[in-house]
Amino acid sequence: MENEKTMEKTFDEVFLEIVEEILELLEEKKYVAARAKLLENNEVDIAEILEEVLEKLGVEKTIIIFRMLPKDVSVEVFSYLPSDDQLAIINGITDKEVAFIIDELDFDDMIDVLEELPANLVDKILEKTPKDERKLINTFLNYPDNCAGSLMTPEYISLQKDMTVAQALAYIKREGMDSETVYTCYVKDKGRRLIGIVSLRTLVIKDDDTPISELMHEDYVSVNVYDDREDVSEMFKRYGYLAIPVVDREDRLVGIITVDDILDVIEEEATEDIERMAGVIDKSDKEYLDMSVMHHVKNRLPWLVFLMISLMITGMIITQFEDMLSKVIALVSYLPLLMGTGGNTGSQAATLIIRGMAVGEIDLRDAIGVFWKELRISFIVGCVLSALNFAKIMIIDRQSAVIACTVCVSMLVIIMFAKLVGGMLPMLAKRVGIDPALMATPMISSITDMVSVVTYFLLATAILNL
Amino acid sequence: MENEKTMEKTFDEVFLEIVEEILELLEEKKYVAARAKLLENNEVDIAEILEEVLEKLGVEKTIIIFRMLPKDVSVEVFSYLPSDDQLAIINGITDKEVAFIIDELDFDDMIDVLEELPANLVDKILEKTPKDERKLINTFLNYPDNCAGSLMTPEYISLQKDMTVAQALAYIKREGMDSETVYTCYVKDKGRRLIGIVSLRTLVIKDDDTPISELMHEDYVSVNVYDDREDVSEMFKRYGYLAIPVVDREDRLVGIITVDDILDVIEEEATEDIERMAGVIDKSDKEYLDMSVMHHVKNRLPWLVFLMISLMITGMIITQFEDMLSKVIALVSYLPLLMGTGGNTGSQAATLIIRGMAVGEIDLRDAIGVFWKELRISFIVGCVLSALNFAKIMIIDRQSAVIACTVCVSMLVIIMFAKLVGGMLPMLAKRVGIDPALMATPMISSITDMVSVVTYFLLATAILNL
Repeated sequence: MENEKTMEKTFDEVFLEIVEEILELLEEKKYVAARAKLLENNEVDIAEILEEVLEKLGVEKTIIIFRMLPKDVSVEVFSYLPSDDQLAIINGITDKEVAFIIDELDFDDMIDVLEELPANLVDKILEKTPKDERKLINTFLNYPDNCAGSLMTPEYISLQKDMTVAQALAYIKREGMDSETVYTCYVKDKGRRLIGIVSLRTLVIKDDDTPISELMHEDYVSVNVYDDREDVSEMFKRYGYLAIPVVDREDRLVGIITVDDILDVIEEEATEDIERMAGVIDKSDKEYLDMSVMHHVKNRLPWLVFLMISLMITGMIITQFEDMLSKVIALVSYLPLLMGTGGNTGSQAATLIIRGMAVGEIDLRDAIGVFWKELRISFIVGCVLSALNFAKIMIIDRQSAVIACTVCVSMLVIIMFAKLVGGMLPMLAKRVGIDPALMATPMISSITDMVSVVTYFLLATAILNL
Repeated sequence: MENEKTMEKTFDEVFLEIVEEILELLEEKKYVAARAKLLENNEVDIAEILEEVLEKLGVEKTIIIFRMLPKDVSVEVFSYLPSDDQLAIINGITDKEVAFIIDELDFDDMIDVLEELPANLVDKILEKTPKDERKLINTFLNYPDNCAGSLMTPEYISLQKDMTVAQALAYIKREGMDSETVYTCYVKDKGRRLIGIVSLRTLVIKDDDTPISELMHEDYVSVNVYDDREDVSEMFKRYGYLAIPVVDREDRLVGIITVDDILDVIEEEATEDIERMAGVIDKSDKEYLDMSVMHHVKNRLPWLVFLMISLMITGMIITQFEDMLSKVIALVSYLPLLMGTGGNTGSQAATLIIRGMAVGEIDLRDAIGVFWKELRISFIVGCVLSALNFAKIMIIDRQSAVIACTVCVSMLVIIMFAKLVGGMLPMLAKRVGIDPALMATPMISSITDMVSVVTYFLLATAILNL
C-alpha cells in the first residue's frame, strides 16, 4: 500500500514540475525552450499543460505557444482541450487556421468542436466544406446528446464480402490512416446494409487468399443510432468489444462507436447518478470549478426547495402533537435519533437498489426478492439498534422503561418501514418511467422523517396514555 | 425518447423469450433442441442463459447442457459465468474436464477462476502444469486484488526491434491466436525490459521492410504491477489506449492490461464509492440478490451504529435545552426543518466534491477555490431558503416575527456551515489518507445535525431572551 501511494504521488508530482517549468520558461519569454520541453510530452499531457498556461498566463501566451507546435501535434492537442479552451483559442487565431484545424480533426472530434461553437462561426466553416460532407456534418450535429448517434464516427473501414484477405489488407494499408479504428472492419452489401464484421486479428492470421465472406461474423451486435448511450455502454460492458456498429432503422451502417469513447460515458453516467442521488440536477458537462456560482445555485435550489416543503410538513405534523410534547418534554430529545436512523437505514437500501438497477444486476422482476430480503435485513438491523438504544436510554439517560419501550418499538417500526420504502420506491420509479436515482437519500429521508414523527408520537400517545 | 424506450425493452424482452424457450425445452428433456437454440446465441448470452438454467432447474441439468456445448464454446462460456456458478459446474464435472477448461482458458480468466477455487483443488490442478507455468500462475495468484497485477495477462505479442514489418506480421500470424490482444505489440531488449510499443495499425500500414526500431514509440505509458487499479483506469481514461503495459520495479515487462477489463473497473469503483457514500461498506464483489441477509446486515450495521451514536449525542444536546423548549414548545416544530435542510445542503456539496476528486477534476490544491465557491453558493442558497421560510412562518404558521427571525437566521448559519463542511471535509479526509467517500451524506448529516441543534437553541435563547 505504501508503494502505491508513492507511485501515484510521483506521477502527479513529476507532471506538476513539468508544468511549473514550462510556465516559468513562458513567463521569461523563452518560447523555443518551452516548445522543446512541451514536445517531450504526450499530446494528452500537452493539452493539460496548455490548460494551465491559459489559466495562469492568459490567452495570448497560450496562442503563441500553440502556434509553435507542429501542425499535426497542434490538431491532436486541440482535440483534447476542454471546449471553453478550444473556443478561447479559436477566437484568437485566424479563420484560415480554424478551418485547417477543423478539417484535420477526426470526424467525431470535429462534431464535438462544432457543437460548442457559435452558430455563425459554424456556418462560416461549413461554407467551405464540400456539399456531401456538409450534409453529413449537419446530420451528425442534429443527433440528440444522449444517443448513440452523438458518440459515433463515420470513419471506419468497410470491406466487400468478395474481397480476399490480401485485398482487404491492401485496402486497409491505403485507407487505414483516416479511419477511427482498423481493428474491426465492416462488410456491407450493395444497399449499404451491414452484413458482417471481421477483425484485423483474423485478417492478419488467416491466409491471403481466403475470401472475407468465409471469415466474417454475421451474428454481430449492433445498436440503433437513436439508442440511449447508457444502453450502448451496457453493450460494451456485456460483450467486451472494441467497437460496435451503429445502424439506422433500415439496418444501414451509419457509423461506429469505439470503446475509448465509452470509458467517459460510463464515468459520466455514474457521475450523473451520484449527483442526482444527492439532489443535484446538472444538465451540463462542466467541471465543478469551471461552473459559475449562479449555475451551482440553479442546480441545487430546486430539490432543496422541494425537500424543504416536505420538512415543513413534518414540522406541521409536530405542531399537532405540541400538547403531548409539552407534557413529556423528554420525548423531544429522541426525535433526531428516530428521524436520522430512519433516513440512514432507508438510504442504504435505496442506494443499493438504485445502483443495482443502473448496472443491470437488479430488474423489475426482482421486486419480490428485494422486498423479502429487505424485510429480513431490516428486522435484524432494527432489533440490534433498538436493543442498543434500550440499554442506553435505561442506563445512561435513566428514563423510565415505558419511554425506552416507546422509543425502541418506534425505532423498529421506522427502520423496517425505511428499508422497505428505500428498496421499493426506486423500483416503482423505474416502473413509471422516473429516474430511480431521484429516489435516493434526500427523497427517502423526507418520507421517513414524516413517517417517523407520526409513528413515534402515535405510539407515545398510546403507550404513555397521553 | 419514445423510440429509445421501445428499443431497450425489445432487447430485454427478446432475450427473455429465448431464455423461457430454452428452459422449457430442458424441462421437457429436449436436450438436442435446447442445445441448437442455445448455440444461436453469443457466448456472453449463453453464459447468462446458463445462469438462469442453474437457478431455475438446478445443477444437474446445467451440467448436462454445458457438456453438450462444443469444447471451445464451453470454455468461453465458462469464463463469462459468475464465480459461484463456475464453482457449481466444477464440482459437477470430472477432474479431467476441469483440467481441460483451466488449460484452455485465457491466462487472466484462468487466474480469476483459480482465485475462487478451494486451495486443495488449485493444488491438484497445478500439480499437472509444467513447473515454469506453475511459478507464473503462483506469482499472479499472489498479486493483491486491487492492483494492476490482478488485472493483467502475460499473453501479449512481443517483438524484437531488429525485426522488419514483414517478420513481425509473420510472427503475429503464428502467435496471434494465443495473445490477449494483437493490436498493440511490445518491443523488449535482451533483459526483458520494455523499450517501445508498436500498433498493429502501424504494421499493417507501413512497408514490409521497415524495421520495427523505426516504427516503435519509445514514449509509451506504462504502469507498475503494484499500482492501484483506480490509477490504472485513470490512465486508460486519460490516454484512450486499448492496452497498457505493466512493468516491475526494474522496468521489466510482466504483462499487459486491456481496455475491456477496465470498463468493469470503472463501474466497480463507482459502485464502491456510491455504496460508501450511503454508509454501506462492502468488500465483496457479490451482487445484491446473491448476498445473504446476514452479509447485508454485516455491511450496513457498523455505520448505522456509528451514526446512531452521533444522533444520541444530538439528542443529549437537546436534553440540555429542555427547560427552554418547554417554555416555547413551538420551537420544536422547526427542528426537523433546520436539521434536514442542513443535511440536504451539506450532502450536495460533499457529493460534488467527492465525485470531483474521484474523477480527477478537483485536487487538494483547489481547496481555497472550493471554499470560496461554496461560501458564495451557500450564502445565496441560504438567503433564498430563509426568505421562503420567513414568509411561510409569518403567513401560514402565524408565528411572531421574533420566532420567524430565530428560525431564519439559524437556517442561514446552518446552510453556510453545512455547505462549507460538506465541501471541506472530503478534502481533509483525502489529505490525511481516509477515503473521501466516507465523508458523504450520513457523516455530513450527523455533523450538521449537532451543529443545527446548538446553533438554533443558542440563537433562540439569545433572541427570545429565554
